[in-house]
Amino acid sequence: MRGAMMHAPGDVRVVDRDEPVIEEPTDAVIKVVAACVCGSDLHPYRGVEPVNGPTPMGHEYVGVVEQIGADVKNVKIGDFVVGSFWASDNTCEICRAGYQSRCVHAVLMGTLGAQAERLRVPLADGTLVATPGQPDEDLIPSLLAASDVLGTGWFAAVAAEAGPGKTVAVVGDGAVGLMAVLAAKQLGAERIIAMSRHEDRQRLAREFGASDIVEERGDAGVARIKELTDGLGAHSVIEAVGTQESMMQAIRSTRPGGHVGYVGVSHDVALPGDELFFALVHLTGGPAPVRRFLPELIDLIWKREIDPGKVFDLDLPLEDAAEGFKAMDERRAIKALLRP
Amino acid sequence: MRGAMMHAPGDVRVVDRDEPVIEEPTDAVIKVVAACVCGSDLHPYRGVEPVNGPTPMGHEYVGVVEQIGADVKNVKIGDFVVGSFWASDNTCEICRAGYQSRCVHAVLMGTLGAQAERLRVPLADGTLVATPGQPDEDLIPSLLAASDVLGTGWFAAVAAEAGPGKTVAVVGDGAVGLMAVLAAKQLGAERIIAMSRHEDRQRLAREFGASDIVEERGDAGVARIKELTDGLGAHSVIEAVGTQESMMQAIRSTRPGGHVGYVGVSHDVALPGDELFFALVHLTGGPAPVRRFLPELIDLIWKREIDPGKVFDLDLPLEDAAEGFKAMDERRAIKALLRP
Repeated sequence: MRGAMMHAPGDVRVVDRDEPVIEEPTDAVIKVVAACVCGSDLHPYRGVEPVNGPTPMGHEYVGVVEQIGADVKNVKIGDFVVGSFWASDNTCEICRAGYQSRCVHAVLMGTLGAQAERLRVPLADGTLVATPGQPDEDLIPSLLAASDVLGTGWFAAVAAEAGPGKTVAVVGDGAVGLMAVLAAKQLGAERIIAMSRHEDRQRLAREFGASDIVEERGDAGVARIKELTDGLGAHSVIEAVGTQESMMQAIRSTRPGGHVGYVGVSHDVALPGDELFFALVHLTGGPAPVRRFLPELIDLIWKREIDPGKVFDLDLPLEDAAEGFKAMDERRAIKALLRP
Repeated sequence: MRGAMMHAPGDVRVVDRDEPVIEEPTDAVIKVVAACVCGSDLHPYRGVEPVNGPTPMGHEYVGVVEQIGADVKNVKIGDFVVGSFWASDNTCEICRAGYQSRCVHAVLMGTLGAQAERLRVPLADGTLVATPGQPDEDLIPSLLAASDVLGTGWFAAVAAEAGPGKTVAVVGDGAVGLMAVLAAKQLGAERIIAMSRHEDRQRLAREFGASDIVEERGDAGVARIKELTDGLGAHSVIEAVGTQESMMQAIRSTRPGGHVGYVGVSHDVALPGDELFFALVHLTGGPAPVRRFLPELIDLIWKREIDPGKVFDLDLPLEDAAEGFKAMDERRAIKALLRP
């Protein structure tokens, strides 16, 4: 089959790869209907993370079940399924508490390479959620978004305790930040401040529910958030970048007693203990347990109550995966969908 | 009046100080019945924090109201009162949300010096809570504990979401850690693991409700907590020290999705963003909003349902304040009560 591999920073190629097979009785193999390029895929692409030899790429996927292992009970051949970027058993104590991304048996899907024609999904019963039927074509981008960026933005909004009466600020205007705006809106936030200096992303943020746009960054961005919140800071702040500057911007934009939900993968971040201490905020984040939210998100998409698929502004055949990476790296695209 | 002053690290003297007076119409002046030495008072004593000239000491106090400003309505002359170590208006948006230690008008009581015969309390209406009547003598240490160490330990236990069905680990066997054990017990925790290598503190921890004692520290301590919790880590971990080692020990002892409540004043702590990210824990802490809990804590003490005053193992006249500091610094005492 064909699949995308990263050979070195900046070097993504679609090549022939071995067909995945059932390796464990809990596996499924799906025919990938759509996959995409993640902001975190840009970390090795940009050399921020090492590339240790040719690596299969992609961890976001929707598709149709083609094979199942002997122990798989919750999905059947022919089901259209959405899965998270972490495979999880969904039965261990950590999963049952809602933290499936740290399942005791968690497998990172990125190591398997979802930007391909087929994908082996470990722990299929715990990982995959079947849609109520075969989706209309126009729902596919939204269902794909649920696999990571929507689920991650949703977790960030939940972690930040976005909800009625709350002012929410979102640091980061990438796909996850934009999805967090949508999530905050759905969760009933009163006011949603998107921090962005790009006109196309500002427009999308407003479509997803942002009431205010702040273009300033760093200290100036913090000062602007304080101005908009009677000098107190936002109740809920979502961090969707992962740098030292963005984390400190998020923490400093939060009022005492407020909540920071952070989902940007941390790179070279060190949080100063004294500042964090006196900030008196709640800090929650990490790899999003998307599986917790999938049934609810699929339901909202199926009923057409949300349209997160709008975050894909580039739609390419799988063969053009390299262009998807390039367009996102150059910020010509917010998020690239790939169709095998 | 007489009051304790720190002149330099290791140099505490009881000297003549000016009598406090009503400076603002929202002030009260109280006759201090009991004050004490705080673990955080040891930071300048040990030179961990600078001493900028002679400084009044003490921020924990109970006493009787002697004077009130024209605007004070909630306490009257003759009331026996307990206050927090932060003066707060208790009416601003931050206070109403329960974070009085970051009140928009907060005043740090430490700057006023509670280890003295009298104390000016700013924002008396928001800061002081009157007891139901004049307390029996034996209740005074417990009421004094509510002023800081009990309130701080309680906040840590609440921040760590200690409660029914939860395994709670407490890092730090100082007065605050011991009070956190008591708080976790009151909040209904199923299992409480106190981390201590001092026999007297272990004994007190058991009296306050600890079910297990772990003597190991650092990585060995983390491994022991994991052993005791099916390899997962504790649901709730309380950090009551404030060093890099203790913070990392707390974070690493917490299961994914669990809660860390930290109240040790941070010194030279830098939290590595990547480890914190993948830990997927909730981190909440800072200067405890003790005022939030005072009515409930006074009620529990008044009904003799808790006896936090046992944490004081040294009872001295105010004139011997220097010995109180010395005994705590040398770990001969857990906490020293001072009587003017």
